[in-house]
Amino acid sequence: MEQTNSQEKRQFNRPRPTTPSGQAGAATTAKPKRSFGGNRRPHDRQRRPAWPKADANGTSTTEVAERKTAHIPNPEAGIIRVIPLGGVEEIGKNMTAIEIGDDIIVIDAGMSFANETTPGIDYVIPNTRYLEERKDKIRAMIITHGHLDHIGGVPLVLSRIGNPPVYSRNLTVLMLKKRHSEFPHLPPMNTIIVENNETITMGALRVKFWGVTHTIPDSMGIIIETPHGNIVNPGDYKLDQVDGVVSQEEEDAYKIFDTMKTLLLFTDSTNIENEGFSLSESKVHIGLENILRRESGHRIIVAAFSSTITRLIKIIEIAEMLGKHIFINGRSMRNNIDIAMEAGLLKPQKDTIQPMDNIDKYPPHKVIVLTTGGQGEEFSGLMRAANKTDKKFALKKGDTVILSSSIVPGNERQVEKMKDGLSRQGTRVITYRTPGEEYVHATGHGNKEDIKWLHRKIREKFFIPIHGNHYRLQQHKDLAMELGVPESNIIVPDNGSIIEISADGEKITMRREKAPATPMMVDGFSVGDEQSVVIRDRQMLAEDGMFVVVALLDSKTGLLKKSPDIISRGFVYLKENQDLLRHARVLIKRTIEQETKGQNPVNFDQVKNTVADIVSKYLYQHTAKRPLVIPVILSM
Amino acid sequence: MEQTNSQEKRQFNRPRPTTPSGQAGAATTAKPKRSFGGNRRPHDRQRRPAWPKADANGTSTTEVAERKTAHIPNPEAGIIRVIPLGGVEEIGKNMTAIEIGDDIIVIDAGMSFANETTPGIDYVIPNTRYLEERKDKIRAMIITHGHLDHIGGVPLVLSRIGNPPVYSRNLTVLMLKKRHSEFPHLPPMNTIIVENNETITMGALRVKFWGVTHTIPDSMGIIIETPHGNIVNPGDYKLDQVDGVVSQEEEDAYKIFDTMKTLLLFTDSTNIENEGFSLSESKVHIGLENILRRESGHRIIVAAFSSTITRLIKIIEIAEMLGKHIFINGRSMRNNIDIAMEAGLLKPQKDTIQPMDNIDKYPPHKVIVLTTGGQGEEFSGLMRAANKTDKKFALKKGDTVILSSSIVPGNERQVEKMKDGLSRQGTRVITYRTPGEEYVHATGHGNKEDIKWLHRKIREKFFIPIHGNHYRLQQHKDLAMELGVPESNIIVPDNGSIIEISADGEKITMRREKAPATPMMVDGFSVGDEQSVVIRDRQMLAEDGMFVVVALLDSKTGLLKKSPDIISRGFVYLKENQDLLRHARVLIKRTIEQETKGQNPVNFDQVKNTVADIVSKYLYQHTAKRPLVIPVILSM
Repeated sequence: MEQTNSQEKRQFNRPRPTTPSGQAGAATTAKPKRSFGGNRRPHDRQRRPAWPKADANGTSTTEVAERKTAHIPNPEAGIIRVIPLGGVEEIGKNMTAIEIGDDIIVIDAGMSFANETTPGIDYVIPNTRYLEERKDKIRAMIITHGHLDHIGGVPLVLSRIGNPPVYSRNLTVLMLKKRHSEFPHLPPMNTIIVENNETITMGALRVKFWGVTHTIPDSMGIIIETPHGNIVNPGDYKLDQVDGVVSQEEEDAYKIFDTMKTLLLFTDSTNIENEGFSLSESKVHIGLENILRRESGHRIIVAAFSSTITRLIKIIEIAEMLGKHIFINGRSMRNNIDIAMEAGLLKPQKDTIQPMDNIDKYPPHKVIVLTTGGQGEEFSGLMRAANKTDKKFALKKGDTVILSSSIVPGNERQVEKMKDGLSRQGTRVITYRTPGEEYVHATGHGNKEDIKWLHRKIREKFFIPIHGNHYRLQQHKDLAMELGVPESNIIVPDNGSIIEISADGEKITMRREKAPATPMMVDGFSVGDEQSVVIRDRQMLAEDGMFVVVALLDSKTGLLKKSPDIISRGFVYLKENQDLLRHARVLIKRTIEQETKGQNPVNFDQVKNTVADIVSKYLYQHTAKRPLVIPVILSM
Repeated sequence: MEQTNSQEKRQFNRPRPTTPSGQAGAATTAKPKRSFGGNRRPHDRQRRPAWPKADANGTSTTEVAERKTAHIPNPEAGIIRVIPLGGVEEIGKNMTAIEIGDDIIVIDAGMSFANETTPGIDYVIPNTRYLEERKDKIRAMIITHGHLDHIGGVPLVLSRIGNPPVYSRNLTVLMLKKRHSEFPHLPPMNTIIVENNETITMGALRVKFWGVTHTIPDSMGIIIETPHGNIVNPGDYKLDQVDGVVSQEEEDAYKIFDTMKTLLLFTDSTNIENEGFSLSESKVHIGLENILRRESGHRIIVAAFSSTITRLIKIIEIAEMLGKHIFINGRSMRNNIDIAMEAGLLKPQKDTIQPMDNIDKYPPHKVIVLTTGGQGEEFSGLMRAANKTDKKFALKKGDTVILSSSIVPGNERQVEKMKDGLSRQGTRVITYRTPGEEYVHATGHGNKEDIKWLHRKIREKFFIPIHGNHYRLQQHKDLAMELGVPESNIIVPDNGSIIEISADGEKITMRREKAPATPMMVDGFSVGDEQSVVIRDRQMLAEDGMFVVVALLDSKTGLLKKSPDIISRGFVYLKENQDLLRHARVLIKRTIEQETKGQNPVNFDQVKNTVADIVSKYLYQHTAKRPLVIPVILSM
C-alpha cells in the first residue's frame, strides 16, 4: 500500500497536452457551507445564472479605485520579499507571493468557506490588490496540489492578476481545469505540467519541485533558487510512515535536501498542536479493508471527503478485490473519481463502478456506496439520504455507514443532525471515535513529529510558519526554536505581512507597510474586499429584521395624505403585534407632522432622521428589538 | 477532596427561609451565544428595557389561539404518563412532565442558546402548551440542579403554567432566585427547599430525593412512588470515583436502591459515546493545584464555566492554601461565587478575594484571576482581555492562562480566535489538550461506565433515555439492552412524545398523539412557538438582503409621478452597482405602467406581484442574489 502511495507521488507524469475535462458544473467544490438557509432553493443555487460576460473579472473596481499599494516601494536589488496573502491568521485560502527583483511568483490561490460571520457569502478568496498592481512582474502561479484551499481561488485570482501561466503536476492541472470550467466567462487558463527534478525558469528565477505525500496524489513541494540558498515550501504534507518509521521512498524523496542549502522555509502549521506522528494513511486503508470484510453481510456506505483521492482509489481497489461494486453518490465524488481515472491513477474493471440507479439490482453484500456528506452539508449525498430526500438512494435498516472523515470545526451540529437521521433509519454508524474503529480516518497534515522530521531534513536558516491561526504559527515558531533556529531568524506573519531577506542573505525583517489583506468575498457575481457594509447590514437584518416606513406628505399642508405604510420582515410576528403597528403609525404621523410644521421647504433628511430615532426607540422599548428602521417620505 | 465533594453533596441543608439575593442583573446566564453580531451594541443589550408589565407572560397568545392539545385525552386511571418536553432530539432545555391521575409534576425547565439556525433569538425554552392547558393539575416543579439547561427556562415557564411551587435544594433555590430576578415583571416564585430522605406529598404523589455528584453542589435525583415501583430520575450526574473505584459515600448514597423496586428510569445520555469512566473531578483539582504550584512565578488566569461551582470553590481554597489572591472577572462568575458564599459552601478569608481594581497592587506570584470566557463568548471576561477591550484587566506577557473547560460544539471558531488574541499578548495557554496537562478539565456527565454502574444499581423495569440527540438515546437504549432490559421495555422518545405505562405496570407504550414541542423562542420580549415565519425572513435577509421598491402612481393616468425609489440593504455594494439600480428603476416604471394600462380600478395586488417577479428575476440574472423584493405602490 505504501508502495502504491509512493508511486503515485514520485512518478511525475511526462508533460502532455492538457485536454479540457469536458464536464460542466461544479467539479471539485464541496457545497459551500452556508451559515443560513434552511430549505432555501437548492436548485436555484445549482441553476444559477451564467456569470456576466462583461466586467466579470472585477478588475474594473480596482482600476477606478485609488491604488492601494502605491506607498509600498519595490524591493531593492537583491532583496527577497515574501508575502503570505492568505492562509495565516486562519486555516484556508492559502496564497503566498515571492518577489525578487523584477519577478513575482504566486504559490497557490485557495478559497475558504463562508461562516456565521459572513452571511450570504458564497466563499472567500485572498486579497489580490498587491498583485493586481504589479501584474507585469508576475511570471507564474505554482500550485502545490489540488485541494480547494489551494486551488479554489485560482480562476478568479488569475483573471485579476493578468492571467500568468499556471504550473503544477498532472492531477492538479486536471482539478484546476475542472474548477476553471465553473467560470466560463473567464479567459482560458494557461497550464503547464511540471515534473520532478525538472528546473523551470520563471523570469530570472529557477524553480524545482519534489513529490510529497498528502491525501491527494501529485502533491508537490517547491524550491526556488537564490544566491544565498533555496526558498523551500513543501505545500501540504504528511510523512509516508508507519508508527514513526519513515518509508525508504520518503527518505529518498527528501535526499535532495542533504546537500542543499535552504535559506528560507515556509511551511504548514495546521497540526502543530497534535503530538506524535500523524496516523498513517496505510493504516486507514487496512482499517477500512477490515471493516469491509467484517461487515460483509451489510450494504456499506462510506462517506469521505471527495478531496481525499488517494483513499477513494484505495477503497475502490479493495471493493474490486472483494468482488463488490461501487456506487458513487454526490457530484463532487463522481467528478473527482472521473478525474482520477482520466489521470490514469485509477483503472477499475468494467463493471466495478455502477450507476446509483442499479443499486437495488445487487444484494447487500455486493454494495459499497461511496458518498459525499461526511460533514452533514445540507444538500450533500449522505445528508439527503439521512433526511430521506434523495430519490435515487434510500438507506435501509442494517446498512453500515462509515464516516471516513473528521468534523471540520463549525460543522459539529449538522453532523449530529445527520447522525440522528442515520440512526432513525436503523443504520449503524462507525466513526473514528467508535471504540475499536480508530482507523477509519487519518488527518492529511503532518503532526508535530512529522513537522520536526521535516525541519531536521531541510535545516533552514530562516523560517516563516504559515497555514494556521496565529497561535498555531506561534507554536510552530516555538518548535523551530527548539530545533535550533534562532528567534531573530523567524517571522510569524499576518495576512499581508511583507517579509524581506536582506541582500546579503543575513537578515530577515518585516516591513512596516502591509499588503492589502481584507478577504475578497465572492457574493453571487460580486467579488471584492469592500463588502463589509453589506455584511454588517445582513447581520443587523438577521438579528432584528427591518421596519420600513412609507409616508406620503402633502407638501402644501404639511400633513400626511393617509396613515403611513409599514413594511416589516424578520422583526416580530406581526399577527400578534397589531397594537404595536397601530401605535407606531400614529407616532409616525404625529412625528412627521410636528417636524415639518413651519419648515418651508421641508428638510427631508432631518425629518427622516427624527422619525428613525423616535420609531427605533419606541420599538425597542416595546419589543427589546432593534430592527433597521428606514423612513421613506414622498411629498406631493 | 473527595470528602469535601461528598459533604457538599450529601449534607442536605435544613430548610430555611429563602432570602432574595438582592442583586440585579443577569445572574447565572452565560452570555447567550449570538449567531451574528460583530461589534453590535453590547451595551444596549445590557441596558435592555424592562419587560413590559402587561401581557408579558405570553399566555394571552395561547388563550386566544385554539387549544392545541384538546385531542389528547387525560390518562386513564392508573396510567403513568411521561412526556419529555425538552432535552431529547438535542442536548439542552431539559423538561419532563410526569402525569398520574389528577397530578402533574414537572421536572426541570431549562433553556438552550440560539444557534445559526435561529438568528436574532435570545434563547430557547421548552414548549409549554401541553402544561398551559392542564395548569390546574400541576402540583409542583422540581429542579434537579442549578445549571441553565435545567433552570434557565424556569421563570418564563412557571408564569405560563400557573406558577406552581418549585422544589429543590438550597444552592439550586438561590440560583433560581437569581435567575428569576432577571424577570421583575413576573409574579414571585414560591420555592421550597427539600432535604435528603424527606418524603414530600405533591397532590396524590409521594416524592423523595437523593444527592448525586455533579459539577455543582446540591445536585439531586428524584424518586416518585407508584404502586408498581418507583419512577427514578437522577438528573445530571457523574460518579464520585477515581480510576473506576467508586467512593464509599457514593455507594452509600445509592444504597437506597438495593431494596427499591424501580418501575421506570429515565436518565442522561450526554456522554454515552465516551468509553470508560469520566475523568474524576478530584483529579482535576489535583491537576489544577499542580499547575498553580508549578507556575508560581506567573500570574495565573483560570477560565472556567461559572456553572462549575464545585471547581471554583476548590480553586479558591487552593489559592488560599498557597497564599495567593483571587480576582474575579466576569459578571456570572462574580454572581455564582457570591451565591456559593451565601449558601455557606465557600468561606474564604477576608482578603482572599480581591476586587479587579487591586490586581496591579500585587506581585505576579500572588495573583490568580478566575474568569468567564472559556468559550470565547463575544463579551465575556477572557475574550475582552484577549481583544484588549477590558479597561480593568489587561493581560501581560508571561501570564499563564488555563482554559479549564471543553469547547461546546459550535464555539470552536471563536475559541480559536480567543487563543490567537491570548497568544499575540505573549501569554501561555494551557488546555486539556496541551500535552501532559489533561487534568485541567473533566466533563460533568457520566461516561459509559458511570452510566452502566447506575443502571446496575437501579435495576429498572422500564427505561427511557433522555438528555441527548436521537443517536445518543439510541446508543443508550443499546446499552440498556446489553444490561438486560428487554427491547419492549424501552422507549426512545422525541420531544413531546407521550409515553404511558399501563395501569397494571406491565407495559410501556408511546401514544400516537404528541404534545406540542416546537421550541419556544425568546426574542426580546416575545416568547412563543410561532416565530418560524420571522426566523425564515431573517435567514433570507441574512443571505441576500432586501430590495424595497416605492412607486407613486397617478391613478388617473396610470403613469408614475416620478422614478421609483429603491431602498436596499444587505444586497450588493450599492456604490459599485449604480447601473444596476438605474436599469431596475426603468424596468419597474415600465412594468407598472404596462401592467396598469387598461386596469380600472387598478388591481394593486396583481401589479405588485408582477413587479416582485420581474425585479427578482432581473436582480438574480445580474447578481446571482435573491434579495427579498417588496414593492410598495402608492396611488394618488
